[in-house]
Amino acid sequence: MLTEQVVASFENTPNPRLRALMQSLVRHLHAFVRETEPTEAEWMTAIRFLTETGKMCDDVVRQEFILLSDTLGVSMLVDAINHRYATGATETTVFGPFYMEGMPERTFGENMAHTPGEPVVVRGRVLTIDGAPITDAVLDVWQTAQNGMYSGQDTQQPHGNLRGRYRTDAEGRYAITTILPVSYPIPTDGPVGKMLDATGRHPWRPAHLHFMIEAPGYRTLVTHLFDESDPYLKSDAVFGVKPSLMVEYRQRDAHDQLARQFELSGPYREATYDFTLDRG
Amino acid sequence: MLTEQVVASFENTPNPRLRALMQSLVRHLHAFVRETEPTEAEWMTAIRFLTETGKMCDDVVRQEFILLSDTLGVSMLVDAINHRYATGATETTVFGPFYMEGMPERTFGENMAHTPGEPVVVRGRVLTIDGAPITDAVLDVWQTAQNGMYSGQDTQQPHGNLRGRYRTDAEGRYAITTILPVSYPIPTDGPVGKMLDATGRHPWRPAHLHFMIEAPGYRTLVTHLFDESDPYLKSDAVFGVKPSLMVEYRQRDAHDQLARQFELSGPYREATYDFTLDRG
Repeated sequence: MLTEQVVASFENTPNPRLRALMQSLVRHLHAFVRETEPTEAEWMTAIRFLTETGKMCDDVVRQEFILLSDTLGVSMLVDAINHRYATGATETTVFGPFYMEGMPERTFGENMAHTPGEPVVVRGRVLTIDGAPITDAVLDVWQTAQNGMYSGQDTQQPHGNLRGRYRTDAEGRYAITTILPVSYPIPTDGPVGKMLDATGRHPWRPAHLHFMIEAPGYRTLVTHLFDESDPYLKSDAVFGVKPSLMVEYRQRDAHDQLARQFELSGPYREATYDFTLDRG
Repeated sequence: MLTEQVVASFENTPNPRLRALMQSLVRHLHAFVRETEPTEAEWMTAIRFLTETGKMCDDVVRQEFILLSDTLGVSMLVDAINHRYATGATETTVFGPFYMEGMPERTFGENMAHTPGEPVVVRGRVLTIDGAPITDAVLDVWQTAQNGMYSGQDTQQPHGNLRGRYRTDAEGRYAITTILPVSYPIPTDGPVGKMLDATGRHPWRPAHLHFMIEAPGYRTLVTHLFDESDPYLKSDAVFGVKPSLMVEYRQRDAHDQLARQFELSGPYREATYDFTLDRG
């Protein structure tokens, strides 16, 4: 049979892991083709779709194959497979394609927003599973502006806008001043957008704040915090939502102690969340 | 479960065929990921591989995703699914990415080679399954030059070199003068070449002549004729070989009747093959 002939052609792969990956890929890919029996026109449509997906990628922030992986739930599956953390550790979600290295170092509570929005303070602690504070953990944080675009992706935004690296203090506390995250559509001007449109799916992601949290001796945590009032929580285009990652942005008074501490001049909202890291 | 959540997200696809394709794709893709449990680095390697494969494609003759489909045996599988012809019809094989439309119309026995090689005559008939001749069938024929490249792919070759459209005569006969096909490697300067190299596979295809044969009232036949003496018959990089498609290139005398008819001045070889078309 053809499938076994193709599987056998990978028998001499020197690296056993690569051999296993390729042979499994061939079996599953052939099973898909045998089950669906694509016409030659459908096969050619798939070839063109993949070609256009590759051509849509640039070297900076647009990675259409990551978007495809995200919208087919593959990224969340790989995430789940690779982050089987101990019970009690904060749950993970997709990294996404919009992270950038080398973003500004921020002080405790510093405002990372240089574009308009409703002011919010997000604060809490970074803890061990036993509840002990982790000092000097680095929280890399990123989110979109109100136009739904990340700085870097949107070259009109100032460098480092709505991005920053915060550190926990001696009690494991962190505090971020920013703007309320908004729900936004993933980019729809490429093949993935066409796929969503053709399949009756919307491209929206519920409002969220991205976190990558690192501390020596602990497993790096990549996750989001979602706004629990968002209308897209049950239909995230990339399947990233987990109930444990929702926060409430509570209304706070313009003149309370926190407002004074973080120099907020009007009403604002506050969300609190404690992250728990698994030991490395 | 995540997989069922992703499958359900395609439930509102207006086109039922697209819905079935996407839902099957998700199930098989997730099954592959669950079975192999890729690391995040492996997943990123796959993303980069697919991206580079897309970027390698041009609008003319290089289609790296077709090469990938070919080298994973998917093209032959799609071919088999779509060409379940009646018993007695000539077997099909891959179309390949190097066909070009609008190639020169050739007379009976015309030489389509403008580059050097060992002269050959390939001739025979195009027949119905009942053995009746098919008049005015068009045989679109293409092959590589001795350097292993097709005209179009190799811009140094004259336009239409080793390509042509022949027609059968009143007795269903066709005759092609050309050069002996050579085995050649598929292009190895892209991601597919790297994949073959990493998996210990060679890129060679056994020597062959491509045919696309069309006649009103019959199903179009896309196939190859392979040289039965080729060393790569059992390890074709694209799994295209079928025993029924092999021919012998017999040595012929320089001064026989056929040599005179086709104006061959030295020794040559001859292969004969009768194609049988399935009714449309």
